[in-house]
Formats: sequence, C-alpha cells, structure tokens
Amino acid sequence: MALNKKPVTGMRDIMPAEMQVRDYVLNLIRETYAGFGFNHIETPCMENIGNLTNKQGGENEKLIFKVMKRGEKLKIAEATTEEEIVDFGMRYDLTVPLSRYYSAHANELAAPFKAMQMGPVWRADRPQRGRFRQFVQCDIDILGDPTNLAEIELITATTTLLGKLGFKGFKVCFNDRRMLKAMAAYCGFEEKDYDQVFIILDKMDKIGIDGVSRELQEAGYAAEMVEKYMSLFTDLETAEDGVAYLGEKLGEALSAGVADNMSTIMNSVKAGASAQFDLVFDPTLVRGMSYYTGSIFEIKMAEMSGSVGGGGRYDEMIGKFTGQNTPACGFSIGFERIVTILMEQGFQIPGAAQKKAYLLEKGMSSEQMISVLAEAKAEREAGVQVLVVQMNKNKKFQKDQLAKDGYTDVKEFFKNK
Amino acid sequence: MALNKKPVTGMRDIMPAEMQVRDYVLNLIRETYAGFGFNHIETPCMENIGNLTNKQGGENEKLIFKVMKRGEKLKIAEATTEEEIVDFGMRYDLTVPLSRYYSAHANELAAPFKAMQMGPVWRADRPQRGRFRQFVQCDIDILGDPTNLAEIELITATTTLLGKLGFKGFKVCFNDRRMLKAMAAYCGFEEKDYDQVFIILDKMDKIGIDGVSRELQEAGYAAEMVEKYMSLFTDLETAEDGVAYLGEKLGEALSAGVADNMSTIMNSVKAGASAQFDLVFDPTLVRGMSYYTGSIFEIKMAEMSGSVGGGGRYDEMIGKFTGQNTPACGFSIGFERIVTILMEQGFQIPGAAQKKAYLLEKGMSSEQMISVLAEAKAEREAGVQVLVVQMNKNKKFQKDQLAKDGYTDVKEFFKNK
Repeated sequence: MALNKKPVTGMRDIMPAEMQVRDYVLNLIRETYAGFGFNHIETPCMENIGNLTNKQGGENEKLIFKVMKRGEKLKIAEATTEEEIVDFGMRYDLTVPLSRYYSAHANELAAPFKAMQMGPVWRADRPQRGRFRQFVQCDIDILGDPTNLAEIELITATTTLLGKLGFKGFKVCFNDRRMLKAMAAYCGFEEKDYDQVFIILDKMDKIGIDGVSRELQEAGYAAEMVEKYMSLFTDLETAEDGVAYLGEKLGEALSAGVADNMSTIMNSVKAGASAQFDLVFDPTLVRGMSYYTGSIFEIKMAEMSGSVGGGGRYDEMIGKFTGQNTPACGFSIGFERIVTILMEQGFQIPGAAQKKAYLLEKGMSSEQMISVLAEAKAEREAGVQVLVVQMNKNKKFQKDQLAKDGYTDVKEFFKNK
Repeated sequence: MALNKKPVTGMRDIMPAEMQVRDYVLNLIRETYAGFGFNHIETPCMENIGNLTNKQGGENEKLIFKVMKRGEKLKIAEATTEEEIVDFGMRYDLTVPLSRYYSAHANELAAPFKAMQMGPVWRADRPQRGRFRQFVQCDIDILGDPTNLAEIELITATTTLLGKLGFKGFKVCFNDRRMLKAMAAYCGFEEKDYDQVFIILDKMDKIGIDGVSRELQEAGYAAEMVEKYMSLFTDLETAEDGVAYLGEKLGEALSAGVADNMSTIMNSVKAGASAQFDLVFDPTLVRGMSYYTGSIFEIKMAEMSGSVGGGGRYDEMIGKFTGQNTPACGFSIGFERIVTILMEQGFQIPGAAQKKAYLLEKGMSSEQMISVLAEAKAEREAGVQVLVVQMNKNKKFQKDQLAKDGYTDVKEFFKNK
C-alpha cells in the first residue's frame, strides 16, 4: 500500500519557485514567437512505435521509452520479441511528431507553415547530474519555405526571445553544411570520409587546430591534405569577411550562391536584431545530425558550456517521412538549460504580482470570515496575490516559511471577542 | 520508411486555432489560481507502476498505459507476467502524483500547501467521440487544512475563473458525504448498502424520484424505508433552507457540526463570489469516488451534459498513500470540456494582438529585405504580430488562407526594379 516517494529514476519533481520561472519563460517564448507569426501546435506525447524507429532519429532511437500493448493484443507468455508486445513509444524529440503532423494536416495549414511546439520529450539516457529523462523542448520550424527568409526569421525570433530574457553578449555561431563540405572537398577529402572528418573538426574548440590536425593524420589522412585543410582555418582567423573569403577561395568546390546566401542571412539578422549578441561565421560548426542540408546554427553562452540552442535547414527529412519533398528549417531553444542559468542567477520575474498573506485565527465566526474574504476579493481584483490561510500555532515558523515563499506582507486577523 | 500519418489511436493533434484557446485558458487558470495563492508544481508524466496500481485509483487502474523496462532488465522471451517487463506507467490522474509529491517534499512546502497542477494524463479507454486517451487535467488542492476555509477558497477560485472566461448562470452543486450517509442512515439503510443506494440515487436527474424509488425497491429495499427516504427529497424541494431543514430533521443520524459547516461554506462562497452563478445544496449529489470523506461539489452548465468540474474533501487518501494523515480537499476543472464549449461558441480571445502579414515578392535584394525586416521589427515591438512570408504564385489563395488564420491586414512588398 505504501507509496514509493521518489519520482521514477532519472525524472524529477518541479518545485514552486522553479515552476514560476518555467511558466514565465514558456509564456515569453509563446508570446515572442507568436509575434513572428509562429503557430503553436501540439501532438500526443506518444507516437506509433514504427514512426519512432525508422532511422531518422539517430542515436535517440536507442533511448525510446516503449509503451506496452493492452488487453487482448498483449500476449506476454507467447511473446519473444519487442514487436509483439509494444505498439506505442514516447516521443524523443518534436521533429518526428512535427513531420507526421504536417503530413497529416498540410492542406489545412498555411504555406509556408510556421510551427511552434513546446512540450516534454523522453529519452532513457543513463541518469546523470543535470540531465533528465523527461525534459521540455521548444522548437520553431518553418515548413515549405526554400528561401533564406526562413533562416532569417528563425534566428531573429530566437535572439529576440533571449534578449527579452535579459541575455546579452551571447554568440550565434553560423555555418552551412554545404560550406563545410566544400571546404573538405577543396582540400581533397572524399565524400565518404566527411562524417569522420567532421567529427574530428567538431573538437576544434576543445583540442585546438593542432589537435584536429594530429587526429586527422592519425585517422590516416595525408599530411598534405590535412595541412591544406588547416590552413583554410588559419587564413579565416585573419580574414575580414570569412564567408566572402571562402566564396572566392573555394571556387567551384562551393555551389554557386551558397556564400551569398550565407552573407544575406547574416547581414539581415544583424540589421534586424533587437537583442545584443554576436552572429559569427563558424567554419568549425558541424551540428551532429546528418539530416541537415544547408544552414546550421548554434547558440553559445559564457554562462554554460555546450550550446543553449541550435538548428538548421533539413530540406530532405520531411520528404523521407512523408513521400513529399518539403523544404524545412528549424531552431530549437535549450529550454532546460536556459531555466538552469536563470535559476542559478536568481532570476527575478519582471512584473510579478504583489504577494500578501492573510492569517486567520481559528474559530472565526461565519460573518467575520465573510468580511475577511471580501477584503481578499477586492485585493485580488486589484491584481494582488492573496493567500488566505489559517493561523498556525507556531506563527513565527509559519511567517518565516511564508517569507521564504515571497509573502513578506502578512496581515493577521483575530477572532472577534 | 513511410510514416503512419495518424496520431496513435484515441489521441489527437491540436490545430493552431484550438491551441490559441487552450493557451489562453491555461494562462487564465494559472493567473487566477496564483491570485489565490496556489503554487504551480509539476511531476513527471510517468510514475513507478506500483504507485499506480495500489487500489486508490479505482477503475482507472485498469486503463494504465504501461511502460516497458529497458536494456538488460528486459527479458521478453523469459517473461510470463506483466510485472516482469513493466516498471513505469503513465499517470491516469494528478492526485496520485500529488500524493507522492507531497510525501516526498512536505518539509520544503508551506503548511497548508496550496497546489496547482496542469498537465496531460492518459487513460486507455475505449476510443469514442469527444473522449480522448490523452487529455489535460487542471487540479487545485489544499493539503493540510482541516477547516472549511479550504472548501471556500477552492470553490471561490474555481468560480472566479469561470466568470473570467465569460461563463455565467452555471450551477455549483454542493453536498457532503456525511450528509448523504446520514440521510440514508436516518431512513434505516445499512452502511454496507450505501454504495448501491447512492449509485441509484445518482440517477435522480435522469430517472426522477419515481425512477429512483422503483429501482431501490427492485433492489430489494423495503418499501417503507424507500418511501421515508424519498419523502426527505420531496420535503427538501419546498424547504427554504435544505441544509438547516436536514440539520434539524436528521437529529443524531447527522454528526454535530456538519450542517453548520455546510451552511458556512455556502454562505461564505456566495458572499465572496465574483462570478454570477448558483451555489445550491444538492442532496442527490454523490460523486463516484469512494475516497471522499466530507464536502463534495460539482459544476453543471446548460452548455454541456455531465459535469464540467468537481471535487471534494478526501481526508484519508494521502495518509493511505504516505502513512501520515493529511487532510486534503481538491477541485478539478474540466479543462477539455471547457475548451470544447468555448470552441463551439466561437470564443474570441480578449486582448488578442493585431495580426499583420507582409508578403514579399521573390528575389528581393538584401538591402530591401533588411528594410522590410526593420519595419516588421518596429511593428512587433509595438505589440503587433507580424508574419513575414514569401509571396506565393497564387496570391489570391494565399491571401484567403491568411484571412482564415486571422491575417486580414496584408501588406505587399514588391522587388525594386
């Protein structure tokens, strides 16, 4: 009969103080993105298991919480494989559900469709500090827009949001998978080796240019090729405009228009920025997921290692899911990381309502109670948060606790004698 | 590779128009309840399966979506029972998680603790029209307050919310399980028969007093006893103050203070009401769950059959879970039903932002794009929702669709020649 008091392994309860910050951030996200014309949508937290295990989700597919069949369909004793007893799975991201949603409803939706999603996802990762098996993702995606207006709007919306949350001086790193590939091609790397090369390149901020050079050579690439590759990066350090430099230097290795496209995106975002941040071309930005086809971007902050958001263009993914080619571009903000930073900074919610506590002595008459409640009503209608509670025997302890919860204004009501 | 386009059976995708209403209602719930000092909290959507199957959840325990163990712990071929392959389950309500949360965190929380929860729950009900297997519940609960201040605050908060949503003339039916039992005891029914008697009584609004009388006699209760019982209800129809009438009439069958307590709650709620509604004593109100120990209440609206919210006092439930007696009282608002009513009424969200669409001709220069985006930025900062999109070839169709999405104000930007 007794309850297991702990949340399930790797998931957590959220206390009121953090919840207030979460609610504030979620509301700000919703309002800000709505201001850019994104439509909030929602899909069920479960998907048919086949939708989650079709190789689009990469490593995440190994981390699915699977839901068991029910009733007569479930025959445990006879089953020998998962397929026989599982029908649904918990979503591990919001991109697969979005693809399904879009394929089901595209003809009811605007074209292009600007989608906003906020909701929990589940991954059965090995539990570790600061990393949870249920966490909230916030994604914006533009489906059906092949032009760079999508990138511009996504980056502008995201940085505007961060600015409203009080963040400044953060960095938006920007690259394009086609640029990444052109740089490798220009130096003689073969397409089949790109994945391995980029995994090593991705370590640039950790192991430096010497480390990358060494690891590439250790992986068997010719020293001359590696040297040529590395010299591109050193040249970029001094180039005034890295994108323009590469646009010229790479010649035919880079498809026509890619460099211009990148420049337009960066210039437009900078010109239209309302937050204070740096948008920088980062030729070492890789973004792990192989489904990206064009622009990629990532947000970095001094307050936190790793990224606090990222995304890119994935023009071929929705088509693979739905059979109908649909250009797509998305930006996912690191909601949990942002909340963590704000909590660590002791974030004060702007415009939070005044909080008052009424302590009522026990045994008050009905008439007196009514008059106290009328007072509470008037204050609440004026926008004050009024907590009406019985006075505890240990009033000092009660007041201390109320103060901890932000009720510094305490009014005591005693029984009429 | 192809995706199954449909959401999992019995669950649904939510389209932008409904989502806007849902977000508005959720925000209003959060703000209104916060105004009464309720603390928003959150627990994981999964619980350890043992917590969900300990007989506190009644029929809902048969409807659990169960989550399969993972990795080495999962041995399907060897398993013959559910217990061997399941470790978690999706929550079917917010009360079990609240009990667990409170037992884990009570010493960090205010006493009494006013909790607000909003989130999805899952029940593997047979799929049917208007009833879904994932739906949002919104609960407020006061834990640790044995006094009727809890009932007063819960009913006042809930009715205030409904008033803010524009509802009026709805009915809050009020009763007390102890009154219900006293009426039966007074007429000679035995305690062991209460459940059966109340199930029949619960049909009063469908089959009328004659129907209830007939069914009770068919169930084998003495005609005289049934007649005495029914006459209580007919007497109540003409009684000016039903609670006072019964308080006197039932004598010792009713515990001292119950009638007074009911009157105080009703008078206080009426005096402090900010919405326009009827709070009525309903001697036929039963509320199914057997865990209720005192006050019970339910909201009825002309717009929808059944109830759109309900709750009551359950002083013994948390103790059964946690081993520590904790008086508790809660009110659950029928979020999905309220959204359904609002959608059917064509609810217009008050204070919704002005919506403008900018249509950009394709092939605009970077400079021109920057100037358009600057204009969008200025409008967004002034609170206008600005959708910036490429102009489609079929501009008329695009505009029609935009109008459908609320963008009546469309501005076209053409490429500079």
